[in-house]
Amino acid sequence: MTSAAAVDAVVRAGGPQLAALLDRTEARLAELAAGHGPTLALHATATISAGGKRLRPLLVFLAAGEVADATTEARLVRAAVAVELIHSASLVHDDVLDGAALRRGAATIVAAAGRTVATATGDLLFSRAFAELAAGEELDDVRALSAAASALAAGELLQRADAWDSSIPLERYVHRCALKTGSLFEAACRLGALATAGPPARADALALFGRRIGLAFQLLDDVLDVSGPASRTGKARGTDLLDGTVTLPLILARERDPQLARVDLRALSDMAAAEEICDRIADTGALTVAKERALAVVGEARDGLPPLPSHQQRALELVAEGVVERYG
Amino acid sequence: MTSAAAVDAVVRAGGPQLAALLDRTEARLAELAAGHGPTLALHATATISAGGKRLRPLLVFLAAGEVADATTEARLVRAAVAVELIHSASLVHDDVLDGAALRRGAATIVAAAGRTVATATGDLLFSRAFAELAAGEELDDVRALSAAASALAAGELLQRADAWDSSIPLERYVHRCALKTGSLFEAACRLGALATAGPPARADALALFGRRIGLAFQLLDDVLDVSGPASRTGKARGTDLLDGTVTLPLILARERDPQLARVDLRALSDMAAAEEICDRIADTGALTVAKERALAVVGEARDGLPPLPSHQQRALELVAEGVVERYG
Repeated sequence: MTSAAAVDAVVRAGGPQLAALLDRTEARLAELAAGHGPTLALHATATISAGGKRLRPLLVFLAAGEVADATTEARLVRAAVAVELIHSASLVHDDVLDGAALRRGAATIVAAAGRTVATATGDLLFSRAFAELAAGEELDDVRALSAAASALAAGELLQRADAWDSSIPLERYVHRCALKTGSLFEAACRLGALATAGPPARADALALFGRRIGLAFQLLDDVLDVSGPASRTGKARGTDLLDGTVTLPLILARERDPQLARVDLRALSDMAAAEEICDRIADTGALTVAKERALAVVGEARDGLPPLPSHQQRALELVAEGVVERYG
Repeated sequence: MTSAAAVDAVVRAGGPQLAALLDRTEARLAELAAGHGPTLALHATATISAGGKRLRPLLVFLAAGEVADATTEARLVRAAVAVELIHSASLVHDDVLDGAALRRGAATIVAAAGRTVATATGDLLFSRAFAELAAGEELDDVRALSAAASALAAGELLQRADAWDSSIPLERYVHRCALKTGSLFEAACRLGALATAGPPARADALALFGRRIGLAFQLLDDVLDVSGPASRTGKARGTDLLDGTVTLPLILARERDPQLARVDLRALSDMAAAEEICDRIADTGALTVAKERALAVVGEARDGLPPLPSHQQRALELVAEGVVERYG
C-alpha cells in the first residue's frame, strides 16, 4: 500500500477544500453502507467504513484541481464514492476467492458471514457505484467507470488464463496489470479531470498519469510479494507463486537463472517451498531491476503530466512519490 | 422457467420487427461474449450464447410497442442486451455459490473453470451491462438498470439474512422476491417504455406490470421447488429447504401444520429428509394456496396494464400467461 504518510502530506497541502471533499466522501460511503439493510451495514463496515487510504478518491480530487462551484463538488464526490465502491467490491470478491480471513486488520466479510453474503455484498457495492454516478447528469462519467470495471474483471480473467504458466511474455503481464489496477486509477483521474473545465487532451493526459501510477503500484506490489518481509506486507512471501500468478520478479529472474525458467509452480507444495523460490529470484538481482522498472513508470507518469497550476502538479507528484515510498 | 411455447407464440405474433430486434440482441450478446478475450469467450458461451428464453429482452421490446425509428431500435437493443447481461451475471454468481454443475444442460462456468474465473466472469458481464447502456445517450436507462442491479443484490443479502428462520413474515418474503426477481423484470419493462414516447404514468404502469410478473415468476418457482417433480424442474425437491431458504409453501403450511412451524431446517440431513418436509407441506394444501396467490399476482399485473394498442396488450398478456403456463 502507498505510504500513509505521503497521503497525509498531500491532504494537508490540499487545504480545507480537499479535506472537506474527502470528508463528504467518507460521510457518503458511511451512509451507503448503512442504507441497504442491516446485513450490508454489518458487513460493509469492515470493508468500506474501516477505511483504507482513499487513494482513488484522492486522485479524483487532485485531478480535478481547483473547484469553483457546488455542482462540480457534488459531481466529484459522486465520482470519488463510485471509484471507492468499485475498489471495495473488488476487494470483497478477492477475499471470497482467496478465502482471506483478515483485511485491514478486521475480519473479512467472507470470514464473518460466508461466501454467499460476501459475493452478494460485492455485487451490491458494484451496483451502488453505478447508481451513484447515474444520480448525476454525466453519461461520460458512467462510461469512464464502466470501462474501468470491465477492465478490472478482464484483468482478473487474464490472470486466471495465464495461471501456472511461467513462460508468459512480459508484455502480457504488463497488460494484465494495467487492466487489473491501472484502469481504476485511470478512471479516478479521468473522472476528476472531466468535472473541471479544460481541453480533452488534459483529461487524457491526467487519465494516462493515473494509469501509469496504477501500473507502478501493481508492479511494486508484486515485488513486495517476493521481497517481503512478511512483517511489513502482512502476508507470507510467495503467495502469488503458490496461487500460480506469475509476476514481474519471476519473469525477469527466469532469464537470469535457467532453472527458474523450468520451475513448475504447481509442484510448490507449501510456503517454505514458495519462499525458497523467492530467495532464488532475489539472488538473480531481478527484484532490483523490477523496482527500477516500476520507478521508471512513475517517472513517465510524472513527466507526462499536462501543464497544471503548480500546487496541483505538486500534489499529484506527491502521490506518485507515495507509491514509491513504501520501499523506503 | 416460463413455457417456451408461450414465448414462441409471442414472438410469432410480434412479426418481423420483434424477430429482428431479438436477432440483433442475440448477435450483440454473441459479439460481447467473443470480444473480451478467449477466457470469456470460452466460458460465457455456456451462459450467454447457450440461451435461455430471453424473457427479459422480450419484455423490453413488448413494453416499447411499435418502434418507428432506428435510433429507438438501437436504444432498445442496448437495453435488452444490458438486462440479459445482468441476468446472466447473477446466474453465474449463483452457480458459484451453489457449486452447481449444470445450467441449461451445459457445464456451469464454476464447474468448468473454477470459482475465480466464474466470479470474474460474472463481474465482467455485470460491468459490460453498464458499459452497454452508457454507450447510449440516456442516463435514465442507466438509472433504471443500476436500481435493478442493486435491488437484486440486496434481495440476495436479505435471503441470506433470513436463512434458516422458518418464522419469517409473509410480507418480508414477498419483499425479498420483489427485490430478487421483480426488480429486473421491472427494469426491462421500464427500459422498453422509456424508449418510446408516452406519458410517465405509462412507463410506471408498465414497470409495475414487470415487477408483478417477476414476483409471480418467483412465487411459482418456489412452489415448483417443493412440488416437483424433479423430472420437470431438473432438480431434486426441497433444495431451497436444504439451503435454509424459507419460501411461500412453508410460510403458508406452517399455519396449517403446527409441527411444520417448529421444524429446524438446519437439522435436515439429506435430500430424503427435505423431500419428507416437501410432502408434509403438500399435505396441508399450501401448494394450492401458493399457486392461487401467484395467479392472483399475474391477474393484478394484467389488470394494471395501461391503455395500449390491442396487439401490444395481447402480447404482454401472453407473456403473463406464459409465466403461469408452466403449471400446465
